[in-house]
Amino acid sequence: MENFKVTPWEVIGDVDYSKLIKEFGIQLIDKNLLRRIKKHTRVLHPYLTHGIFFAHRDMNWILDEYEKGNVFYLYTGRGPSGSVHLGHIMPWLFTKWLQDKFGVELFFQMTDDEKFYFKDDISLKKAQALARENALDVIAMGFDPKKTHIFSNTGIAKFMYNQAALIANRITFSMIKASFGLNESSNIGKIFYTSMQAVPAIMKSVITGNNVPCLIPHAVDQDPHFRIARDVLPKLNYYKPASIQCLFLPGLKQGGKMSASEGVGAIYTTDNIATIKKKINRAFTGGRGSAKEQREKGGNPEICSVFKYLFMLFEMDNKIISTIDEECRKGERLCGQCKIYLQEKIIHFLKKHQSQRERAKEIFDQYWVEEQNDVKLLFKK
Amino acid sequence: MENFKVTPWEVIGDVDYSKLIKEFGIQLIDKNLLRRIKKHTRVLHPYLTHGIFFAHRDMNWILDEYEKGNVFYLYTGRGPSGSVHLGHIMPWLFTKWLQDKFGVELFFQMTDDEKFYFKDDISLKKAQALARENALDVIAMGFDPKKTHIFSNTGIAKFMYNQAALIANRITFSMIKASFGLNESSNIGKIFYTSMQAVPAIMKSVITGNNVPCLIPHAVDQDPHFRIARDVLPKLNYYKPASIQCLFLPGLKQGGKMSASEGVGAIYTTDNIATIKKKINRAFTGGRGSAKEQREKGGNPEICSVFKYLFMLFEMDNKIISTIDEECRKGERLCGQCKIYLQEKIIHFLKKHQSQRERAKEIFDQYWVEEQNDVKLLFKK
Repeated sequence: MENFKVTPWEVIGDVDYSKLIKEFGIQLIDKNLLRRIKKHTRVLHPYLTHGIFFAHRDMNWILDEYEKGNVFYLYTGRGPSGSVHLGHIMPWLFTKWLQDKFGVELFFQMTDDEKFYFKDDISLKKAQALARENALDVIAMGFDPKKTHIFSNTGIAKFMYNQAALIANRITFSMIKASFGLNESSNIGKIFYTSMQAVPAIMKSVITGNNVPCLIPHAVDQDPHFRIARDVLPKLNYYKPASIQCLFLPGLKQGGKMSASEGVGAIYTTDNIATIKKKINRAFTGGRGSAKEQREKGGNPEICSVFKYLFMLFEMDNKIISTIDEECRKGERLCGQCKIYLQEKIIHFLKKHQSQRERAKEIFDQYWVEEQNDVKLLFKK
Repeated sequence: MENFKVTPWEVIGDVDYSKLIKEFGIQLIDKNLLRRIKKHTRVLHPYLTHGIFFAHRDMNWILDEYEKGNVFYLYTGRGPSGSVHLGHIMPWLFTKWLQDKFGVELFFQMTDDEKFYFKDDISLKKAQALARENALDVIAMGFDPKKTHIFSNTGIAKFMYNQAALIANRITFSMIKASFGLNESSNIGKIFYTSMQAVPAIMKSVITGNNVPCLIPHAVDQDPHFRIARDVLPKLNYYKPASIQCLFLPGLKQGGKMSASEGVGAIYTTDNIATIKKKINRAFTGGRGSAKEQREKGGNPEICSVFKYLFMLFEMDNKIISTIDEECRKGERLCGQCKIYLQEKIIHFLKKHQSQRERAKEIFDQYWVEEQNDVKLLFKK
């Protein structure tokens, strides 16, 4: 663990995923599990076959229960600290696929309080505004409005705090300090926070009064939260939440670092065509110093951010991606060609996304859940 | 500080109040301040002249502002961990007097979450039920229903958590550890909690959108919470809350210990006549081994719990209390006489209190403030 560090708020260095699996104690998604999933979904999402969603906790139990008629619900979320970029979209695409294939409900948490506690430059008001802003991107994904609830922690804080209190009561500071990188100089909001992130894992159980299995699709850096939740929730007579976990989408800059930070060479969902083109043109690739050299020696897709964007987001056809890989290595394909290909894919995707994002403003209320309490009226005599 | 310890959750040993004043950095209420208060109240409450409300923070500023027309409001509260006893009533009597004399609003906080976090044998549900139960005793005091708002932290948690988050963001674990007796084995609810107790100190400012001075009458053990609040709230552009602080009412058992714990030789507001008589008959006094010896050598009011109950709660006439003191020391007055006197006083007080407590059930809604959100409806599609 010397060369990288992964906490929910910080991803540093080149992540060694096999080490991470060991350290976190998560399971690799193997062929047997893929076969089991396929039984229900008929086809497998390329994220599963590409190893982008690569690890899990208790997926077999989720399917056991599902097969018995005890249907799970999905819980995922977003820390609203800025604009949504393609790295955020990736797990949502997969979550949408799960919702469609299994016909299940989704609880989507906007962690506005978290971003306020952890980011010095974000006020609570700003985080609350971003939560609503970011929700437009979630809605634009096309989640079923009848089965999808989006909320922010402060927006339904009566519900959240009442449940979080029960959870917080079972978590000591020493239990979370190390895995969250906290210390005595941390503010007490940060220290309390993980109990808020655990709540949606029991939300449907609380609402219905029955225990309902919960499956959380998320990027692997969030695992420490749910490790704690899995430890505590059974003590409150709830199921342990299951999870299915993905890699980070890399940034477009050199180094191939998988970064959870905002805006490090990221493409935002609101970027216009010129910006997208510029960002991709400047992206770090596995190309050589000159076209001549590349034709002779070939390029290196393994370190190429353009290739990774294709592989992880925009080219789900295995045949095509293999061809690109091969042609690149042989020097038959230059970076310019890949960049244009990726630009077209992104522009196509975002054009549709942006128009759906506009429409999302009209149907916002079909998704958004908020406690309505006017403080002034509440205390009026 | 070797022989006693005072935190909001634990009072151990014989409290040396002069040491406490130094350690906490609070001000003694002096003659000048009494004179200033009297200018507005015409008479002084015996708790002020008896030195029961003995210390303060910024009372002069509260009066400065009041005299300029910037009227303060009162904030006090109760940790609902059991039945209300006479020790709790004491500061409420004084709070009522302040409300009447200054004609001001009162925000009364039931810290149900706190009691859940800090008492192993109290569930959150139990604490919530006790909050409503204890509110009957508050209402029975006769606070002005038009100017009094009673609420529990979980009952208005949307409001509370949204404000507490802003406060928690400014408090580090190292800032509170020592004064609250917390450590790394403390649950994270305990660690977060003080930010909830700070909220009512800005409540009226938040509701009205204007800065309103806040005066907190409370027992001295709660000072650490408000020290933190005074440190943090100005950073959020609110006033520092002022306070006026009282001694603890001692228990009825030997030792004369001032104890904040529940039920240590306490008389509950719901005790019947037989129970009251029994408790007082068994109370620890400053009497001698025999009536004969006491007539010869005299008794000691200083260590006598019966005398303290008279002095602190039930005999506010200075002449009478001096006579009792004198007669006791001279051996002219035996313990039985004092016990009967106190019993009569308590029975008289509680008879009235209990009937007002019954009536409180009918007018409960005039005082109680709660956010109305049915979780099931909230998430209904």
